[in-house]
Amino acid sequence: MASTDKPAAHSDKTEVESQPPNHSPCINLFLVDLPLRVLLFASTVVAIVLITTSKDTEIAVVSLAPSKFGPRAAKFTHSPALIYFLVAVSVACLYSILSIFASFSSISKPAPPKTLLLVLAFFDALFVGIVSSALGAAAGVAYIGYKGNSHVGWNKICNVYDKFCRHIAGYLTMALLASIILVFLTMLSTYSLYRRSR
Amino acid sequence: MASTDKPAAHSDKTEVESQPPNHSPCINLFLVDLPLRVLLFASTVVAIVLITTSKDTEIAVVSLAPSKFGPRAAKFTHSPALIYFLVAVSVACLYSILSIFASFSSISKPAPPKTLLLVLAFFDALFVGIVSSALGAAAGVAYIGYKGNSHVGWNKICNVYDKFCRHIAGYLTMALLASIILVFLTMLSTYSLYRRSR
Repeated sequence: MASTDKPAAHSDKTEVESQPPNHSPCINLFLVDLPLRVLLFASTVVAIVLITTSKDTEIAVVSLAPSKFGPRAAKFTHSPALIYFLVAVSVACLYSILSIFASFSSISKPAPPKTLLLVLAFFDALFVGIVSSALGAAAGVAYIGYKGNSHVGWNKICNVYDKFCRHIAGYLTMALLASIILVFLTMLSTYSLYRRSR
Repeated sequence: MASTDKPAAHSDKTEVESQPPNHSPCINLFLVDLPLRVLLFASTVVAIVLITTSKDTEIAVVSLAPSKFGPRAAKFTHSPALIYFLVAVSVACLYSILSIFASFSSISKPAPPKTLLLVLAFFDALFVGIVSSALGAAAGVAYIGYKGNSHVGWNKICNVYDKFCRHIAGYLTMALLASIILVFLTMLSTYSLYRRSR
């Protein structure tokens, strides 16, 4: 990109001067992009660690049914929403690793390849949807665990499985952070393309 | 945009021939963008209608507690997840109306304003996150209503409130459609900027 700009600047100086936004069209925003992707990786890894270590066994009544007395474990595998959450965050973690390499490969270039910006923006937008839906699903179920729902007789469980619920709060926070980072990353790639557009 | 290309094509034909993507950099993708936004509006309106008309009163036992006998209504206001869903989809519906006007204003232009493309891509990405998280939250709670969760004593309610659950299935489908449309719209605006980038 820079190589196609330079001859134009040499051959026709007045044309370049009449288009002030063209002076720095190829800003490299990967200096912001890369740290955000590392943060995305860190948040997804912490979320995965928290969800996989969230088993909590308590001797407790977790239902109104008398047969439910006795020691019982709360595990994320008991909830399809939390399983979906783990799968979605794991895929997002893998994507963050791949995108860190892609971002790192372009950080030193004066004009990063525009196709890379497009591909990153596409996948970032897709992962905004995946991670946000997983966050919503896990948060919706966690809220019932935290508050219960008296209208349909679903009892809260966080008064019993406090350790389990603290873990849930932790990985929901991490997933919220990951979602926000992904929205910013989408905007960043789009803005880079905008700066280079005519 | 087109005017800046034409002099270049006249002055240096070989340079233009070596860059085939520059022949039609200003394609107007609003012809695809506008119908998608109308579809987004339609799906969110249907979702709003379905959620606000989803009240279902049944004489039923919805809990193991003996005091819960008698006629009871299932309403979306009983679930914070479904309230969040309604708010999120309503905001997305308002946004779709605004973006339809923006898209319509640029549909006939040979080169739509690039700032509009950037703003639409930003907001589309944001709404992917909002609508997807609402979809996840509502789907997570709906799944418990459909299947229950024996591990924590949450009983399924869809065997009783079948009309209510059919409505939920309807508006979840609409929200899924809206999420997918929003991802495509983000990609479309980004692709338009990509086609115009150097």
